[in-house]
Order: sequence, then structure tokens, then C-alpha cells
Amino acid sequence: MKNPVVRFLPNKVDIEVEEGASLLEVARRAGYVLQSECGGQGTCRSCIVRLVSGDVFLTGEPNLTAKEREEDYILACLARVTEDLVVEVPEDSEYSFSPDAIESERSPGERPGQEIQARGLVIDPAVKRISIVVPPPTMESNSSDFERVQTALEKTNIAGPYDAGVDLLRALSSSLRRNNGLVDVTLFLSNRLPEILKIETRGENVREVGLALDVGTTTLFARLIDLESGDVLAEASDFNAQISCGGDVIHRIIYASKAGGLEELRTLVLGTVAGLLKRLGEEAKSDRDSITAAVVAGNTTMQHLFLGLDPKTIREEPYVPTVTHFPILRAAEIGLDIFPQSPVFMAPSVASYVGGDITAGLLAAGVHRSKKLTLYVDLGTNGEIALGNEDWLTACACSAGPAFEGTGVKCGMRALPGGIDQVKADHDTGKLTYRIIGGGIPKGICGSGLIDLLAELRATNRITARGKLNPDADPERIRKAGRRAEMLLVNGAATGGRGDIVITDADLDNLIRTKGAIFAGIQTLLKGVGLETAAIERVVIAGSFGKHLDIENAIRIGMLPDLPRDRFEYIGNGSLRGAGLTLLSRQLWDELHEIARRITYFELSSWPGYMDEFMAALFLPHTDGSLFPSVKSP
Amino acid sequence: MKNPVVRFLPNKVDIEVEEGASLLEVARRAGYVLQSECGGQGTCRSCIVRLVSGDVFLTGEPNLTAKEREEDYILACLARVTEDLVVEVPEDSEYSFSPDAIESERSPGERPGQEIQARGLVIDPAVKRISIVVPPPTMESNSSDFERVQTALEKTNIAGPYDAGVDLLRALSSSLRRNNGLVDVTLFLSNRLPEILKIETRGENVREVGLALDVGTTTLFARLIDLESGDVLAEASDFNAQISCGGDVIHRIIYASKAGGLEELRTLVLGTVAGLLKRLGEEAKSDRDSITAAVVAGNTTMQHLFLGLDPKTIREEPYVPTVTHFPILRAAEIGLDIFPQSPVFMAPSVASYVGGDITAGLLAAGVHRSKKLTLYVDLGTNGEIALGNEDWLTACACSAGPAFEGTGVKCGMRALPGGIDQVKADHDTGKLTYRIIGGGIPKGICGSGLIDLLAELRATNRITARGKLNPDADPERIRKAGRRAEMLLVNGAATGGRGDIVITDADLDNLIRTKGAIFAGIQTLLKGVGLETAAIERVVIAGSFGKHLDIENAIRIGMLPDLPRDRFEYIGNGSLRGAGLTLLSRQLWDELHEIARRITYFELSSWPGYMDEFMAALFLPHTDGSLFPSVKSP
Repeated sequence: MKNPVVRFLPNKVDIEVEEGASLLEVARRAGYVLQSECGGQGTCRSCIVRLVSGDVFLTGEPNLTAKEREEDYILACLARVTEDLVVEVPEDSEYSFSPDAIESERSPGERPGQEIQARGLVIDPAVKRISIVVPPPTMESNSSDFERVQTALEKTNIAGPYDAGVDLLRALSSSLRRNNGLVDVTLFLSNRLPEILKIETRGENVREVGLALDVGTTTLFARLIDLESGDVLAEASDFNAQISCGGDVIHRIIYASKAGGLEELRTLVLGTVAGLLKRLGEEAKSDRDSITAAVVAGNTTMQHLFLGLDPKTIREEPYVPTVTHFPILRAAEIGLDIFPQSPVFMAPSVASYVGGDITAGLLAAGVHRSKKLTLYVDLGTNGEIALGNEDWLTACACSAGPAFEGTGVKCGMRALPGGIDQVKADHDTGKLTYRIIGGGIPKGICGSGLIDLLAELRATNRITARGKLNPDADPERIRKAGRRAEMLLVNGAATGGRGDIVITDADLDNLIRTKGAIFAGIQTLLKGVGLETAAIERVVIAGSFGKHLDIENAIRIGMLPDLPRDRFEYIGNGSLRGAGLTLLSRQLWDELHEIARRITYFELSSWPGYMDEFMAALFLPHTDGSLFPSVKSP
Repeated sequence: MKNPVVRFLPNKVDIEVEEGASLLEVARRAGYVLQSECGGQGTCRSCIVRLVSGDVFLTGEPNLTAKEREEDYILACLARVTEDLVVEVPEDSEYSFSPDAIESERSPGERPGQEIQARGLVIDPAVKRISIVVPPPTMESNSSDFERVQTALEKTNIAGPYDAGVDLLRALSSSLRRNNGLVDVTLFLSNRLPEILKIETRGENVREVGLALDVGTTTLFARLIDLESGDVLAEASDFNAQISCGGDVIHRIIYASKAGGLEELRTLVLGTVAGLLKRLGEEAKSDRDSITAAVVAGNTTMQHLFLGLDPKTIREEPYVPTVTHFPILRAAEIGLDIFPQSPVFMAPSVASYVGGDITAGLLAAGVHRSKKLTLYVDLGTNGEIALGNEDWLTACACSAGPAFEGTGVKCGMRALPGGIDQVKADHDTGKLTYRIIGGGIPKGICGSGLIDLLAELRATNRITARGKLNPDADPERIRKAGRRAEMLLVNGAATGGRGDIVITDADLDNLIRTKGAIFAGIQTLLKGVGLETAAIERVVIAGSFGKHLDIENAIRIGMLPDLPRDRFEYIGNGSLRGAGLTLLSRQLWDELHEIARRITYFELSSWPGYMDEFMAALFLPHTDGSLFPSVKSP
């Protein structure tokens, strides 16, 4: 019997599948990574597709409108393939593996080597290459190849004995005999025995390369860095292919508990990394064996899934990860396709919800070496906050939810082309103007646009201080939709037939809960250490979403504290930067662990007073107006 | 088209093969390991088989008699399969994988644990298991699983940080939660960071097991040892499957230089080890994951081939191995099928022809800790000699050749059932009597029998002091065979149709060269350190062949020095014993390296005076009779 064939539009990809296969899984195999916020429960609608021909077997009741059903929309996660199909993937639901899609999130121009020097340090990577001469043996001096290499190495003041793997030994005899014993030795230096990773005939390989990797819940960022000069050789990013198994860490953890789920998640993220490595290698003209070290930062759940560690206990009281300070692993054992013996350094995490991305970010921001009291806010799929200076550090994770990434907001979307990333209101006429990423037809509103919108709608009195739409303020645009109100932002006529772009009361609820959670987290840390907002001397915003953020509006809605604006700075992807710095400096690697050990973690879910802070923050800007003296009521 | 099928007799094994396959290789696949001394050149005749039906394509001119050709004998190494065949493998040419064949070479009754204690040491293996309690996490004390394990371990006075592989981390969460945190931790302790190899719920595994392995050119010996009690749990031995690629190290090195040869040799010996591990596991009732450490001893070439290291430079001036002091490797990287992360300790070697089998043997014999001047003689496929005491050590390798293993001797064979292992002459009548291993019909003469024979033929004047047959002394039995003489030992009528068992002038030449090389080696070491034979206070004979050796006769033929007989002792398989001891004691492992470093190696091939010593020793017992005062001329 012939297997069914599914054709995906618009790319006309045909794929033969076994009967009964999940359409979500089939789409993934065909290269379409559909988001699945709910982890395949049929509720989040993120995997919506249209059946052009054929029919599917549905395993549950999809959360779809009558009109959508009529137009043959289905949710891929609930559909099983039983016959030939033609399926159309809506353009904006797809997380394609196109590098261009998130090109705007790159941070070119960073020079990790210069940053190291600016800190008064030297480039001193754990993996480094040195050139030695190993004299050929004679009848008078015929010690073994490995012994002669060690003798030559000891002259460079790196005391033996040296460790080495069998692959090194296998290649040794011929490497030493090709160029009169002039060789380049790649060493791994740590608190272990010094290890010889590689011996190459001198000049065979032009440079030693390290990989810095930030494994985000939504996006992976990777850089190749020259371990000698500290220059960035190539940079790439891509969506985490795990998106199809759930949009946030909680849904990923649930997915991992299914049979085979953990291994599937591991394989998916490694697949994304493999794609990045391919592009990086092409850009840097480096082969995989020239990459001999890697630093991997990410939140605790992402680091666990990357290694195939069961994340179950992260989610269960008392919220314990398997490991925070990771032993140094090897590329081959974890399936990272670089030089097999390469050490892989996992950035240490603090707790289940404050991970290696935060410790790496704090290192990049230099918080632990600064006298200035610094607030560090990472606005990613999760919201993490740290506060401290050279003397002490605290951190917490807000269950902020991904509203600013477009999830849970009817017309929300990520910062991709077509997204409204800036909203301005004329405070006299009330007229709203929008900036659209990449120009063209608007498709939805991304995080920074939503913050602007919240600020401007409040400034023009269209929403109340409680965040409810006020129909009296703009009867033309604010309308009832069922029992609740919604406001028309862009008429469907201007969206190329995608329908109206609106903001609803439910959206506003979500957004205010998210901003409230972040501000409540900041307040909790401040009160925990007995300080006032004004004591904060520096605010560092990290995370790709922060790049588009209008600080003024973020303060006006009460998400960030009302401090002089010149105290705010945007650091970019702090996690990736920190990873790159520790690749180049053993001292910074040690400092990273010192940061992780020094952080006092506030578990907000059980922190006394947090809930009061949160409730007080569900207001624009805040129930306590004295906290926001610069913000005027409309 | 159907592939040809080869049937092997007597076992009636059928095997389908591709056209053009080498019959030697096909025999190997069918489980018949034919020796191939010459490495497939068609000269050594060790792979002789008989074609019962079908015909083969010959790639060269085989070294066969007209009669053998007439009777359809061929050499398997030169034969390519082109059609269906029936092939008979002569019973005594086969090195079958039958454990019984070399059962007699086992050394039961050794108690390595007691030996350790007899040396005033305690059992202190590098891999050991300790029991700890890892308290479950609470909201107040919620450090990660790995951190809690380290805290519990630090209480046992083993300072962290600890290393671990990703497999350990993957299993950690569930191991800790099965039995209230009561766990057994398997640690690897060395001059590296302490490493956690395994964490098991307490009581899951009854014991920690180590593997001691002696990789001989002809035979492999293996033992499983309880790492806590030091008891031998199981012992097994088998022929090295590399035999089909050459009988001695030189032919193996040549074979390794062929395309794919090195990998083939590695695969073959690992196959032998896998078979041993299977039998050992059954005998000890241990699964593969309970074996968490291995010590591997062998001569330098065998250790190189075991790891897949190119042995080429061992054979080329200035005779340099790739490595003598090996880094500690892991089971998985070398393909040893025990617990994958297990450390594998390779016994250090001294030079290309004095390997880890000798250093391990010296350790087992305690030469390096003894005031007595000790001569250590390992009579294996190669002959290695060491001389020294607690203050100094010397060693050399004699190019003795494998004559005492039956090779290069017309009716020679290894010490297997049917081999004549003892010969006695009535010095009045001259009548020879034989002892046959296992009783029954004699098939040939093994090493110890050849030494007896040499001694007794000389005592009864049937051979001259130069080792030539003297027809006048026994005209009935000593006859001309072509230009040279041979002596009939056993009439064909008594060998079940195998033909006469004889000894020829050419055989005697070979045997005298072999014994002469050994004695010349001893003399060279003695002279090198300026001592007389009489200074030797202890002679240790090692190697499986030594077990059958009649010391008296070995002195009478001038192979061993003429010393009081009570100074001689037989140590059995010193290499295996030493490997087992170092498994159980980190101090002995360090001592083993000290032995290897302390040994002064004499390279006989370029040693001034060695050739003179050798020439002088080509005499029965020696040209200088004063060296053998106890040996009377006939």
C-alpha cells in the first residue's frame, strides 16, 4: 500500500509519510517549524494551517472559530495524516529556518578581544595553540613520540604529565614526521591535567576557533571567535527548532515528560545548532575540526534539554535542576559537531529559573566588578532580573509570560518583518502612527510596539489606569467584541486581507500582568536588600526584545523604574557576549562561577510580599504614583 | 548471480562469500583462525588446508611438496574463492576459539588481594565505590542534584570539584530519587580531578569489578577481579585472532602497513577480547557495566595494535614507539566493551621491544623492591630479559624467534593436547620416552619438549656440541633427508597417519639460535653492569611456555645460566599478575611507572659485543665451558 503524501504550500514541499503521522511532526520534517505554545493540546492556535485538499483525522477539538472551520483551517497538532493532502502554511505562523528572518537581531561590531583588554586582562583561553619543535629520535635518544612531545612542551613551562585521547595518539606518529617535528599543539588548560587536544604539522591550520552559543527558548545565537585575536569571525542565529514542542520552558518541560520527548527535544536543538555551525563555517571559512572549544549559555531548562537532562524537577517544588555548576563536558559525548575532544563549558546557572544566560549576561555587563548598584533586566521569553554590585548580587525570575513576544495577544507577533515595532500618538488629535519592520504591509504588533501602544493609549486616555479600554475616549475605534471591548488599530483593508489589527481588553490584561510581574520582581529585590529605587545607579537591558524597546514608554507604563534616563543602557545579547568573553579568558570563566555562587536567589513564587507587589503593579503606571514622579496622569 | 558457498570440514560450517574473497579471510569469518606466520606470503605453510571439492584461483606459488599438491593441499592465504568449495582444515593447524585448548595455561589460585596485603599495602584501587546519603532538596535548601552529591562526597574527605560525563548527569535525577538518596558512587581517583563515574541506588549492583588483560602476540589472558576484596572472580584465555595476520610482532607490523591492515588487526584483537569478556561475564555473573576499570599489559607492538596506533616506527631505526607512558584512556574511545567511561590503564613500556608485559611482570615479581639481584626471563613469542634489584634495573629483548613455540621447527607445535612436552632418554640404552599433553596420539613437539630433546640428544651424544645430528651415534634413527640429516622420533604408524615425527638439522639450528640469543642477552646485561653470573641471586621465569620448562635441561643446553637450582622460580603469567595488582593499588600503579622509568634499556641490535656473545652461545652448552661447571660433556 502506498504511503500518503503531504504537499506543503507555499513552498510546494512534498513529503511521504506513514499513515497516522502527526501533521505537526510532518511539517517539521518538511522544514516548516510551526510554533506550538501549548505543546500539542489544540488550544494555543499557533500551529494553524489550511487544508487545501484531502482530509485528516482529528484527535481533539481544535480552538477555532466557526469561520475558520468553514475556511478549512485546522490545527496541525491535532491532525493525523490518513490520505494525500495539500496543506497551506500561513506565512506568518511559520518559524522558518531562514537566517534573514532574525537578521535584525544580530549584534555586529562587538570585539570580545578588545573588551577583554579594556578590562585590564589578556586573552588567555583555556584552549590555546602553541608551536613547538619535537626533535626526531636518534639511536642515542629514542624515547617515544609522546614522550618527546611532552619534553618539548615542558620547555614552554606547562608542567606535565599531559592527558590525551586515543585519537591524538593515533595521529601522532605521522604528524611529527611530516615537517621535521615543527608542530602546532592545541592544549586544553584547566584545573585538570593539561591535555593535548591536537597536534598538527605547523601551518596546517590557520587558526584556533571557539564557539559561543546562546541557547534561547525561542532563538539560538552563535558566534565563532578567533581564540588568538578575540575577533568575531562569524555570527548566526536561528529559531530553536524545539518551538514546535511548546513556546515556553514550561511547555517544553511537559513535552520532555512524554515518551521519547526528551530525546526529541535534544535532537531538535542540536539540529538547529548543526544548521548554525554549517552557516558559521561557511562564513568564517573554518572546518568543524578547527573549532576546539565551546561555551554554551542558556536558561536552566534550555541547558538541560541541550544535554538531554530530564528537566522534570525544575518545574516541581522545590524547583531543583539536575546541575547548576556543570562539569566540563566534551563535544563528542553531547553530540556537538565540532572537534570531538573539544571541551564544552556550560555557563553555570543559579537556580531552576535563573540560568547560565543571566550569569553570562552579568559577566558581560561587568556588574560583579562595578561599584555602581546595577539593575540587570533580561527581557526574553522569560523575564529575569538581577540587582547588585561588586559586593553582592541578587536575582529572581518573573513569571512574566511571553506577552511581549506576541503570545497571548490577539494580534501580537515577534519582531519580524511586518511587525509594528513603534507606535506614536499625537497627543492633541489622538492620531496613532506606526513603524513597520521592513516597511510594507503590517501583520501584527511586536513587543516594543505593544509597550508603546500601552503608553500612548494611556496618555491619550483611551485606556484607564487599570488598563481597560475606555469606549468614551474613542467611540469610533473602540468597540464591543462580545462581552469585552477591543480597539481597531489598523483596518483590514490595509493589511492585505489579513483582517483588522486590534487590541483587546484581554490583551491589555496580559500585557499589564507581564509588565507588573517585571516591576514587582524589581521591587522585591530592592526591598529584599533594603534599598530604594533611587539607589539604582545603572540599569542594563538585555535580550533581543530590548533592542527595540522605548525606555521612556517602558517607564510610563510602569514596567521599568522611574530613574534618570541616562542610567539606562542596552547591552544586546548579554548571554552570547558573556559566553564569548569566557571563551577567551580563563579568569573570566572563573569569575562567571564566582558570579553564580555569589548570587542570592529569590524564589518569587514563595517570597513573602511578592504577591502584594504584583497586585500593586497591575496599574498604569502603579498604584503608588510616588514611585513614578516623572509620569503624568492624562 | 548466486555467491559461492564454502563449506569447512570437519565442523561443516557453510559460509556464503563474495567472489574473489581470500580463503584465509573466509576461514576466519567461519570461525577457523588459521595461523599465518608469513602474513599471507605463501611461504610459512601454516595456513595449509585441503580442497575436498571445487577449485580456487591462486594468486601466487605456494610452498608445497609435489605430494601435497597431488593430495589437493593448498595454502589458504594464496587462494581466492570463485566457486562453491568444500575445504578441510587439518585439525592441528587450526587455532580455534575453543577455551579448552589453552585451559592448561590458566593459573588458578592466585589471590591478588592477599598479595597486596603481603606487600604491606592496602587494597586501594583508582576506581572505588563509596556509599553516601544525598538528602532530598527542600525549599530552604534547594541546590541542584549534582551540587548535593558533591556536598555529600566532600564529607568523605575527597576534595572537589568533581568531574563527570554527560551520561552520569543524565541518570542523576532518577538515581537520587529512587531510594531516599541512599546511593553508591563509583569514583575514579587519580592525579586528575576526582571523577564520578557512576551513581547507583544503593544495593543495585553487588560489586565493582576490574579487568586485567594480558595481550600476548599469540594468546590473550583476562581476569575479572573484585575491586573491593581483590579476589579473582573469573579467568579466561584465548588465542589472539591476529594470528591469522602473522605469527610474530614483525609480521603483524608488516600486516598493519597494508591498506586497512591496522584497523583489521585492531578489530581482530578487540573481537578476541569481546569473546573473553562474554565468558568472563558469564562465569562471574557480572554485566558489562559493572566492569569499571581495566589494566592492559602487553608487549609494545600488541599495545599499539590494541589501540590502533601505527606500529611502523617500532620496526624502523631508531625503533621508537608512539608512546611508552600512556595517558589514561577511556573504554568507549578504544572500543573496549565495558562500562563506557571506565578508565583504561595501559601498562607503561620501556622501548619498542620491552613492553608493558615486562614492566608488569617485574612488578609482579617484586624485582624493584628486592635487595636480591634478580634475573627475569619472559619466554613468550618474544624473549625478554631483565636484570636488577631495588637499586637499578636493566632490560633487553632477544630476537629469539618463536622456535620454542613450534614455529620454524618441522614437527614443532604449541603446548596443546597431542604435543610432546617432556622427553627423557635412558642414558644407558639411549631409549627415548615421551609425555604427551592430554595423552593419546602425539601430534608434534612443543617448546619444553624441544628443550628436553636437545638436552637428551646431546647427553646421549646423538648431536654434537655444535648441534649437528651424529648419524654414527644412532644409525637406525638418524638418516639423511636430502643434503641434511634428520632423526626419527615417532614412527608415522604411531601418529594416526600424520606421518613421522622427526627432528632435523635445520630444526636444531633454529633451536640453538633461539637458546643462544636468550643466553647472549643475559650475558650482555651482566657484562653491561659489570657482574658475573654467580651474582644472580634469583631467577624468575615467566610466560606460559615456562610452565612446562625443565630448568635442569634448559641449563644443560646453555639457555639459562648454571646457577644453584633453588634460585629458579616460575611466576606464571607475570604480565597478567602485574596488571591485576595495579588494578587494586594506586601505589603499585605508580610503582609500575617507576619501574618503566628506571629501566636502562639495552638495544641488542646495536650493542657492542652482543654479536660475539651470541656466536659464543651457538654451542651446547657454550663455547666457554667454564660458564656451565655443572654440565658434563657426554
